[in-house]
Amino acid sequence: MDIEKGAGKIAKCLRLMLKDKPGHLSSVTNAIAQNNASVGDIHLVRVGRTHNTREIVVYVDSEEQFDELVEAISKLEGIIVEDLIDLVHQVHEGGKIATRSRVRIETITDVRQIYTPGVAAICKDIQRSPELANKYTSIPNQVAIVTNGTAILGLGDIGAVAGMPVMEGKAVLFDHLVGVSGVPILIQSHDPQVIIDTVLNIASTFGAIKLEDIKAPECFLIEEVLDAQLDIPVMHDDQHGTAVVVLAALLNATRFSGMMLKQATVGMIGLGAAGMGISKLLLSYGVKKVIGTDIDSNARERLVAAGGKEGTLEEVMQRANIVIATTGRPGLITPEMVRKGSVILALSNPNPEIEPELAMQVGASFAADGKSVNNALAFPGLFRGALNVRATRINNKMKIAAAQCIARHAEEHELVPSLLHPDVHKEVTAAVERAALESGVIKHWDGD
Amino acid sequence: MDIEKGAGKIAKCLRLMLKDKPGHLSSVTNAIAQNNASVGDIHLVRVGRTHNTREIVVYVDSEEQFDELVEAISKLEGIIVEDLIDLVHQVHEGGKIATRSRVRIETITDVRQIYTPGVAAICKDIQRSPELANKYTSIPNQVAIVTNGTAILGLGDIGAVAGMPVMEGKAVLFDHLVGVSGVPILIQSHDPQVIIDTVLNIASTFGAIKLEDIKAPECFLIEEVLDAQLDIPVMHDDQHGTAVVVLAALLNATRFSGMMLKQATVGMIGLGAAGMGISKLLLSYGVKKVIGTDIDSNARERLVAAGGKEGTLEEVMQRANIVIATTGRPGLITPEMVRKGSVILALSNPNPEIEPELAMQVGASFAADGKSVNNALAFPGLFRGALNVRATRINNKMKIAAAQCIARHAEEHELVPSLLHPDVHKEVTAAVERAALESGVIKHWDGD
Repeated sequence: MDIEKGAGKIAKCLRLMLKDKPGHLSSVTNAIAQNNASVGDIHLVRVGRTHNTREIVVYVDSEEQFDELVEAISKLEGIIVEDLIDLVHQVHEGGKIATRSRVRIETITDVRQIYTPGVAAICKDIQRSPELANKYTSIPNQVAIVTNGTAILGLGDIGAVAGMPVMEGKAVLFDHLVGVSGVPILIQSHDPQVIIDTVLNIASTFGAIKLEDIKAPECFLIEEVLDAQLDIPVMHDDQHGTAVVVLAALLNATRFSGMMLKQATVGMIGLGAAGMGISKLLLSYGVKKVIGTDIDSNARERLVAAGGKEGTLEEVMQRANIVIATTGRPGLITPEMVRKGSVILALSNPNPEIEPELAMQVGASFAADGKSVNNALAFPGLFRGALNVRATRINNKMKIAAAQCIARHAEEHELVPSLLHPDVHKEVTAAVERAALESGVIKHWDGD
Repeated sequence: MDIEKGAGKIAKCLRLMLKDKPGHLSSVTNAIAQNNASVGDIHLVRVGRTHNTREIVVYVDSEEQFDELVEAISKLEGIIVEDLIDLVHQVHEGGKIATRSRVRIETITDVRQIYTPGVAAICKDIQRSPELANKYTSIPNQVAIVTNGTAILGLGDIGAVAGMPVMEGKAVLFDHLVGVSGVPILIQSHDPQVIIDTVLNIASTFGAIKLEDIKAPECFLIEEVLDAQLDIPVMHDDQHGTAVVVLAALLNATRFSGMMLKQATVGMIGLGAAGMGISKLLLSYGVKKVIGTDIDSNARERLVAAGGKEGTLEEVMQRANIVIATTGRPGLITPEMVRKGSVILALSNPNPEIEPELAMQVGASFAADGKSVNNALAFPGLFRGALNVRATRINNKMKIAAAQCIARHAEEHELVPSLLHPDVHKEVTAAVERAALESGVIKHWDGD
């Protein structure tokens, strides 16, 4: 399960002609609200003599819901549904990434520099001084985005190829937010050893390895072995990217509730990749009591081995000041379980373990769901920072520094900032660089 | 050995101030010629009152030669050496490729389409109908450029990382010439089985596999097994890209000499990756007699297994109407070996087995070296064409069609066109598509 991703919401676009009189746009947004859909961007695409044309993006849960919405809008006075546009399919057509040249080719002289015969001098330089690969190749800016497709979004084991659109999405964000080259690598295997061996064999192509949407418990072993055997950063985003954003959210949530995070008892409901990643980072941050539960006894044992305690769902709910649920099971937390004054993050998407409004009604001091907790707030800066200083790994100090930085950039009363906040990724990068330098996880070359 | 790549030539740039009087530029180009260096681009970068500033690209064999050239030019009257610019190192700095987004991200609506929650709909579509990966992902436009670094240029086994600048160069050409996304994959192993397994494990990420600079004989087994096991094109460029361009060159060379290629006896000197690739393609094209030699008896056996005959160097030189040398051994062919009226392609770079002028003096009807025979004429269109029609392999019909197309685009008295010829890659693509469709190597999906 992956708490940061809202599988299930479908984006659609309606192109509408609206009579140029006050109130018609409101009648549309009202219809959308009554349909339980939500509104995205609204663009004015044409101003006509009697009607204006607007494209309105809406989010729905199903095709049926969308059909009903279109029917409702069609019946509104002064509104003509001109077209239905499937924006999502449109934007994914042809794939979302490409390998592009960073150099100019206009004359044969250009070719002779970037290719033969000129390139031979660069190859020989790197052969003599391997660290020059960091200066003269794209390797130190490339991050492999590795998946076997076993835990894609909330969709489960749909296969690596069906997971490619997600990997490309990560690469798009890498490029857009921090200028890293993300390179999707789909590995067709359920065997952790095959994934480990394959990544080891190709690892010298990359400056870092981002493991993605690989299911628990295999993800733990794969990350552990690769991290131990490679001298470049290896990070399973579903564990640690998520953990960083949750820590950031908790730093703000406890501030809102007047609670001290390190002194709190944190209850973890669900100990998959996200739950374990969060538990470990909280323990490393200094939280003394983490108590967790999962239907899988192996998962509970892993928490105990990491320094936490295990308990039943009821025990966790009774004892924890802060509850973090990452189970993928909507409605698992019932109102009577909620402890007065507790903070509850019910992070499963698209539907949380308990609706925040309900949790607050029955006494929680603060409650939120997973919609805003997007691990794309963390991974770009974590990797950019690690690559910039040639860190050999992404350690807890770097993750905590990233979380603190993300928390600081949230708007008043928000848990975390927007993914498109203009400064956050640059600032996270700088914070991660500093933490890496201070904790000494930097690769030193002979002669440095 | 790789006949298409002139290892050893170093590109340098001199920024010179030349007195604005006739004859000064000539004195510089004379000095370059006397130094046995060659001239690339000349740019006028500033027009001054008494002096003009020009940047002149020169190609030299060694740093010492360049130092001598700079000293010679410094002594010329009216010339001031203003700066020495290492163009090659400059252009390679920071690497030559990057993974870029093909989609716009301006608002959070954009993010929600390319990433969660919108992306889930695309993943589910592909899970249901795997062929949709060709429509909605970058996979069908991605070609893995796979090397283990064992035969990089003429430099030998310098390791995969030191070979990265060459792999990036191929990716740059792929992007620039035909819009394919080349993805370098460096595999740290000398074991063919490891390379095979690694490529098989990650193959679903790509629309085709380009093997690159892997030494013989391992390259033969690796290509054969991958081609048999994968339903996407697999091509070792050093064998087949080279073979296509050599066939193109031969089609023109035999035309110049009034010879019929299919009826000629072709002698192969050197049966490494390039020599074997050429031999096989010529036999497939319809050449009845191919006789070859190599210092390695296994290499000679491979030729016999492919339908050729083996002989000594002297026998080959005596019997062949057309000699193709790919040994990497300059001067191997002595003037007394040259048969009257024969066509000789001495393709080793940077120094051929016999200088073309010398071969012509002693009776060859046509002779050329490998400088113009660049396999970057072939691979872009071969892969672009194969990807466009979703060919399952690149077969001999497609290679021959590419060779014929390349030959047709050569200028009068040239063997092959320039790599930057405005139409050749588009035309090769179209020829390869037609040949693939005609020979039925197209993947059909259920329900197509």
